[in-house]
Amino acid sequence: MVYVVEMDVKIPESWDEDKLKSFLEREKETSQKWQNSGKWKHLWRVAGKYSNISILDVESPEELHEIISSLPLFPYMNIKVTSICKHPNAIKENLL
Amino acid sequence: MVYVVEMDVKIPESWDEDKLKSFLEREKETSQKWQNSGKWKHLWRVAGKYSNISILDVESPEELHEIISSLPLFPYMNIKVTSICKHPNAIKENLL
Amino acid sequence: MVYVVEMDVKIPESWDEDKLKSFLEREKETSQKWQNSGKWKHLWRVAGKYSNISILDVESPEELHEIISSLPLFPYMNIKVTSICKHPNAIKENLL
Amino acid sequence: MVYVVEMDVKIPESWDEDKLKSFLEREKETSQKWQNSGKWKHLWRVAGKYSNISILDVESPEELHEIISSLPLFPYMNIKVTSICKHPNAIKENLL
Amino acid sequence: MVYVVEMDVKIPESWDEDKLKSFLEREKETSQKWQNSGKWKHLWRVAGKYSNISILDVESPEELHEIISSLPLFPYMNIKVTSICKHPNAIKENLL
Amino acid sequence: MVYVVEMDVKIPESWDEDKLKSFLEREKETSQKWQNSGKWKHLWRVAGKYSNISILDVESPEELHEIISSLPLFPYMNIKVTSICKHPNAIKENLL
Amino acid sequence: MVYVVEMDVKIPESWDEDKLKSFLEREKETSQKWQNSGKWKHLWRVAGKYSNISILDVESPEELHEIISSLPLFPYMNIKVTSICKHPNAIKENLL
Amino acid sequence: MVYVVEMDVKIPESWDEDKLKSFLEREKETSQKWQNSGKWKHLWRVAGKYSNISILDVESPEELHEIISSLPLFPYMNIKVTSICKHPNAIKENLL
Amino acid sequence: MVYVVEMDVKIPESWDEDKLKSFLEREKETSQKWQNSGKWKHLWRVAGKYSNISILDVESPEELHEIISSLPLFPYMNIKVTSICKHPNAIKENLL
Amino acid sequence: MVYVVEMDVKIPESWDEDKLKSFLEREKETSQKWQNSGKWKHLWRVAGKYSNISILDVESPEELHEIISSLPLFPYMNIKVTSICKHPNAIKENLL
Repeated sequence: MVYVVEMDVKIPESWDEDKLKSFLEREKETSQKWQNSGKWKHLWRVAGKYSNISILDVESPEELHEIISSLPLFPYMNIKVTSICKHPNAIKENLL
Repeated sequence: MVYVVEMDVKIPESWDEDKLKSFLEREKETSQKWQNSGKWKHLWRVAGKYSNISILDVESPEELHEIISSLPLFPYMNIKVTSICKHPNAIKENLL
Repeated sequence: MVYVVEMDVKIPESWDEDKLKSFLEREKETSQKWQNSGKWKHLWRVAGKYSNISILDVESPEELHEIISSLPLFPYMNIKVTSICKHPNAIKENLL
Repeated sequence: MVYVVEMDVKIPESWDEDKLKSFLEREKETSQKWQNSGKWKHLWRVAGKYSNISILDVESPEELHEIISSLPLFPYMNIKVTSICKHPNAIKENLL
Repeated sequence: MVYVVEMDVKIPESWDEDKLKSFLEREKETSQKWQNSGKWKHLWRVAGKYSNISILDVESPEELHEIISSLPLFPYMNIKVTSICKHPNAIKENLL
Repeated sequence: MVYVVEMDVKIPESWDEDKLKSFLEREKETSQKWQNSGKWKHLWRVAGKYSNISILDVESPEELHEIISSLPLFPYMNIKVTSICKHPNAIKENLL
Repeated sequence: MVYVVEMDVKIPESWDEDKLKSFLEREKETSQKWQNSGKWKHLWRVAGKYSNISILDVESPEELHEIISSLPLFPYMNIKVTSICKHPNAIKENLL
Repeated sequence: MVYVVEMDVKIPESWDEDKLKSFLEREKETSQKWQNSGKWKHLWRVAGKYSNISILDVESPEELHEIISSLPLFPYMNIKVTSICKHPNAIKENLL
Repeated sequence: MVYVVEMDVKIPESWDEDKLKSFLEREKETSQKWQNSGKWKHLWRVAGKYSNISILDVESPEELHEIISSLPLFPYMNIKVTSICKHPNAIKENLL
Repeated sequence: MVYVVEMDVKIPESWDEDKLKSFLEREKETSQKWQNSGKWKHLWRVAGKYSNISILDVESPEELHEIISSLPLFPYMNIKVTSICKHPNAIKENLL
């Protein structure tokens, strides 16, 4: 099952550069681990914003939550989750 | 350049069944013409809503507008347009 | 997989009583058919509002959409869909 | 009487890991105490978000407030409370 | 149990004066029947708006819904329902 | 003149328990002083939220502001103020 | 007592030109009657919008409602009402 | 003085094609008359939406309103008006 | 040209009493300097809120910005700016 | 391709004057570097607010993001990005 997930990052104002850098490095590692697993299909930057739109293909809602909540910045993001399915007018057989 | 477009359809309450059916048929034809052109990459149904999320790969903002505004239901939709680009943490070389 | 779905009905102002009555009867039949199928687990009225909150246990996002979009009032509702999963603090093994 | 309660947690940015861990442990204890009492019927995770949707069956609005406000993270959550009742189209005799 | 209910009326633009007058008369009768029953404690006009704020003291959420949904303009109102209880700082023993 | 006031408290995350306790004690004293004066007619807890709905009967808008702004937590609340008056369908002669 | 009132007009789409013209003429007469009475102190157009911001000095919330609800377009406006009072930093003795 | 104006068109659902066509032609004439006058500096289409963003350089707020309200679709648009001025970091001497 | 400006103050939670007092004193001085200049025509308190509504009569948008941004609390306010002009139904010749 | 970008700055409350001054100086340098490059066409102050509206003419969404995200205050701004194109009623051949 496929989800479209939009994540807006709100960097805590009290963090110093080192703490932020450490978080961003672990964020990168974690998101790449899931991309390499084949479950995080697309990770797109919203142009001009500290946000991303992602497409995830997972086994279950539990797995979606496992992936998103493993991100170090998870507690500091506003997240919109959309469950999608086949559109009757779509010409492709599969979603991805 | 790639856009994520979310379209929420608001079916006019005064339309009778024939008028609605005619619009929906032309809507299908138009969206499939653009999918066949290779520019409308994905057309996904938002599960449980009269909405879709679409991924379009176009030459320019003008072309995006040409495609979306050619839909017969265009005047009766709330539309959110997001311009996306490569994310620094993405492992794929291309967006699609 | 389980979804929480909130539906707000917006009765079209131009409908006469007969048309509305016919829609409401078919709405009842449709929702009861799905409840009897075992997939529409709970149908709750929001106290004081023309809204319901429903719990559906379905095979896939496609099935969720099949059920919700089969409701005659589907084009005239504002709908919020939430995909849920097991909470780490929950003491029950299953969601329902 | 039954309430649907949606809680969005906003983790304070200034808390260190120990303080957060301590809060989360007490949060778990408190929510499980109320689940074991039979009043907190369902505790569901919103997939992909730091939020839950809960179903509580209580004696009174006072009791609902006693339960929710006993959560250590209560001051740091955005909470939506919905009072529900029997839907005329529901086929079940009881809400739960 | 006590609810605060805010109702915003959206008069349908297509109604002629007779239809509107008939609705408003029945609206008045219905709201006064419930006020006379002792359950609809207060009916206040929001100064300068086509809205009211009401205080209802009912047996159950079902009764609240029975009262509000019996109003002829119920399908044409935006309604906000708030369940209230005793405040720890309140000096009065009872809510009303 | 009567106002309905809804106050949502946002507890500052950086306050320690002593500071918070001190504020809450002074909040209680202040609100009870005004309740005892007969001007703060009702102080209701919104069930499940860190919010209250209050009914105040004051001489003037200036007096309303004097009362609300004397609360120690005033700078840390989101406040909605509604000026109310007699509803043409109300059966009671007075507002309170 | 003084109120700031913002009114956004939503012209019903189904009205023909004659009906609209008749409403606008009566709207003008009504608003000028109240301006001449000295109670409607200022009537300002929001530049570029079908909205006005008005300052009214009235005896009571009831009188404010009497004035605003006497406008023929009252049922077709979104209205925001703000009760104001003297600011501690204001150098003028009176509000107007 | 310069304004940024965003206009979202909401085409009335009850208009037939002739009426809409007539409105759109007069809309074009009116907007081009003002562009030719040199006051409506830029008229941009929002890509993928029935909206425009415009830059107007006018003598006064009155003139801005005269221009915008002369558009035949003015009553059927949601309009956002922003008054702008020189930014301290801007390298250009003039706004346009 | 005349603007209606609504300012909502968000007092930073980390400020101690001395810092806040110092800011509020300078805020008062600055706003009174501009009121004495004759440009800040009205400064009204929104009853029950940490907000004001102000009427400013300035030479240009630049001057409006110079005044508002000179307030010490400027970075900690949510501000809504509305440019107004003469209403066709107004009976006064001038705005103020 | 041309974007309209609106940036609302939220100055962190915990920053002291030196830190803020340092950020604002680097902000100025960065925005002027991009203006001098010819890509950041207009930088306008929203009158009365800590916001700007900017017009950027870039090669790609990637370049837009490179420019905006290079601003030191980027993590502390709410940003709205709008992709624009030629309007059919525009009389100018080019967007800028």
